[in-house]
Amino acid sequence: MISRTLAADLPAHIGEHVTIAGWLHRRRELKSVTFLVIRDRSGLAQVVLPPGPAEELDLSEETVLQVEGLVVANPQAPGGAELTDPVATQLSGPAEPPPFDLYRPALTAALPTILDHAPTTLRHPQLRAGFEISAASAAGFRGTLDRAHFTEIFTPKLVGSATEGGANVFSVDYFGRPAYLAQSPQFYKQAMTGVFERVYEVGPVFRAEPHDTARHLAEYTSLDAEFGFITDHFDVMAVCRDAVSGMVDSVRERAGAAMQLLSATLPKVPVQIPHLHFTEAMALISAATGEDVTGEPDLAPAHERWLCEWAEREHGSELVFVTGYPLSSKPFYTYPDPDRPRSSYGFDLLFRGSEIVTGGQRLHRHEDYLKALAARGMDPAPFSGFLQVFQHGMPPHGGFAIGLERWTARLTGAANLRQVRLFPRDLHRLSP
Amino acid sequence: MISRTLAADLPAHIGEHVTIAGWLHRRRELKSVTFLVIRDRSGLAQVVLPPGPAEELDLSEETVLQVEGLVVANPQAPGGAELTDPVATQLSGPAEPPPFDLYRPALTAALPTILDHAPTTLRHPQLRAGFEISAASAAGFRGTLDRAHFTEIFTPKLVGSATEGGANVFSVDYFGRPAYLAQSPQFYKQAMTGVFERVYEVGPVFRAEPHDTARHLAEYTSLDAEFGFITDHFDVMAVCRDAVSGMVDSVRERAGAAMQLLSATLPKVPVQIPHLHFTEAMALISAATGEDVTGEPDLAPAHERWLCEWAEREHGSELVFVTGYPLSSKPFYTYPDPDRPRSSYGFDLLFRGSEIVTGGQRLHRHEDYLKALAARGMDPAPFSGFLQVFQHGMPPHGGFAIGLERWTARLTGAANLRQVRLFPRDLHRLSP
Repeated sequence: MISRTLAADLPAHIGEHVTIAGWLHRRRELKSVTFLVIRDRSGLAQVVLPPGPAEELDLSEETVLQVEGLVVANPQAPGGAELTDPVATQLSGPAEPPPFDLYRPALTAALPTILDHAPTTLRHPQLRAGFEISAASAAGFRGTLDRAHFTEIFTPKLVGSATEGGANVFSVDYFGRPAYLAQSPQFYKQAMTGVFERVYEVGPVFRAEPHDTARHLAEYTSLDAEFGFITDHFDVMAVCRDAVSGMVDSVRERAGAAMQLLSATLPKVPVQIPHLHFTEAMALISAATGEDVTGEPDLAPAHERWLCEWAEREHGSELVFVTGYPLSSKPFYTYPDPDRPRSSYGFDLLFRGSEIVTGGQRLHRHEDYLKALAARGMDPAPFSGFLQVFQHGMPPHGGFAIGLERWTARLTGAANLRQVRLFPRDLHRLSP
Repeated sequence: MISRTLAADLPAHIGEHVTIAGWLHRRRELKSVTFLVIRDRSGLAQVVLPPGPAEELDLSEETVLQVEGLVVANPQAPGGAELTDPVATQLSGPAEPPPFDLYRPALTAALPTILDHAPTTLRHPQLRAGFEISAASAAGFRGTLDRAHFTEIFTPKLVGSATEGGANVFSVDYFGRPAYLAQSPQFYKQAMTGVFERVYEVGPVFRAEPHDTARHLAEYTSLDAEFGFITDHFDVMAVCRDAVSGMVDSVRERAGAAMQLLSATLPKVPVQIPHLHFTEAMALISAATGEDVTGEPDLAPAHERWLCEWAEREHGSELVFVTGYPLSSKPFYTYPDPDRPRSSYGFDLLFRGSEIVTGGQRLHRHEDYLKALAARGMDPAPFSGFLQVFQHGMPPHGGFAIGLERWTARLTGAANLRQVRLFPRDLHRLSP
């Protein structure tokens, strides 16, 4: 390895000769001196170049340099230290000027332009920060479920039939036969509660979304959990609460600087996240807005925003569970409420104005599946492979899925999911 | 949650009334007594049922039961304790007899039959064990790289052009346009060393393998790492060694019982895994076998086996690096050996007879890519998106990829990768 000191560690080496390495973030030429700002994964370091023969180096911005020098204190340099008396070596090829000034505090280009040049624009500290927050969130999800004795699974993304229903599914030429890209690991994770009892998966899911909005991606990362031996969906909500809390803790520990850079704040996750029943939610919204929405089968985006404001006001919580969604608006595998047969044991978790988690208890008896499909007028034949396992003893179980990009967008305040997805895919975008 | 004691914890509760829950693994009726063996994620528990009115329960095997009773010591029961005076409740639907006797020590059915019924057959402790070992391995990989300040990335699996070359790629109908399934995250992870310096990804990769062998899968899990500011490929091998060592430690800690169940042993990972140059390897093999293989461009499976035996004999190591593969047998992005231009800075790691890791230093200068493509007679146009980033300053970098299923198969002794892949996909198999 190139033996080096990270930029952030320079202040601990005042008076020493060290080597730093990174990208030439900014070159500032003053009358008597040239400043080079070097960017590495830890931050920025200032190098003071005396006037003279440094011209033999190609010092265009984004060139990768290794610089040896003496660390001296300078309160005006980033971190309070800078490198003097430098000897620089070029590690990369000569850099062409990138399409944007990466050293400016914010990239002001339009999103499509930023995405077209993603491999380079992602180097901007503000853009990079979102991905550090994503990575920390995924680590917190896994860590929490590992401690709760969940087993990680890797389920197939190539499937023989459209899992969640026919629409919005990508088809694949599979050795001359049709196959599909999994829209979720739903059926596999359910089946695996019969093997491991408690499972999770962090992986890609695919939706052929014909909608070109800030809320839709053709490919995203789903944090999925599923587990057995539950009493009802409140058990699922409790594990979901712990997973979200673990994600928040992990972001605080691992990506605190990234959050600070984006002036973003973490939510407090209450020990009990407030919850209300769908019918109660609709009654509250109707009473507050004067518009009767009690007959609606689902929450509209405006309703989700209203409920988040309500939870903040009434319970001081940025998170709120909505339980008891109408059975008709949830998938056929959703467990019905035995006391209110039109309601389900499905829930959503809302955060800062929109849904970030969906989950619930699932049916676990074979006959219940046949009844549920019949009640919806659905043909059981395409699901026969999935239904088989319920003939061989499945425990009461449930689970949930968190969209990593939605979660990260809520945390960072990103207006568009594409800002927090590495190389997003949508109706129009398939590269880079 | 259903409040329960796990089977493995019964011995700690002798003299207490507890509730267990799990699958009816085995029902054994003797003259005066019936034994129920209950299986949960921790192991097996024996329940003693007196003669009498238990017939109201559907006690077919694989039914999920909750059983309350008194724990008493019995040296002949699994773990030395059993449940007496039981009250059983059925949690699942009535179970149809599964296609195999899951209680037998080994499943003797043919692999295709086992795979056809995977959701149920995976419940067999021996089959499940392989997946516990896989999960522990992935955790060890991530943990090691997390500690070395790598950032986790989630790169797209839907790509606009066939990444590693035209063959063996699945095509997708992407909103009426052609897209492809990523054969590796290679180009993305390289580009991301320009952003995060050190990255890893654990995710699916897709190969339209027309070979129907025990060594090929159409979809598998790749553990990928890539990082910058290296001196040469030996830096990559050092991180690779640490990752493998972390995987071994994690399996020991998290899946020790699974390894024991399979009578499988973990390798010792030397601080320095022995390494030899490809030309040296070929000379040794030629000398030993009498067959001149020094002109061959790659190792044949028999050569890999021979080298593993050699490393074990000469160095007492089950792991051996082969360095300096001929440039012609490695992808165009492989860094050439400056002192031997026909050799590369690409390496493989062999383990128990076959390659489990491939890696190396990559080219990092734009002009080198153009030269390498020209030397191979390849058109740079399809790679222009990938090459762009090398115009904007990339550090010397390299990385490696570990196939999770190959690794697990070597650890467990599975003869076929399909035994250690959840719902394998191949030329003929797309379900369940």
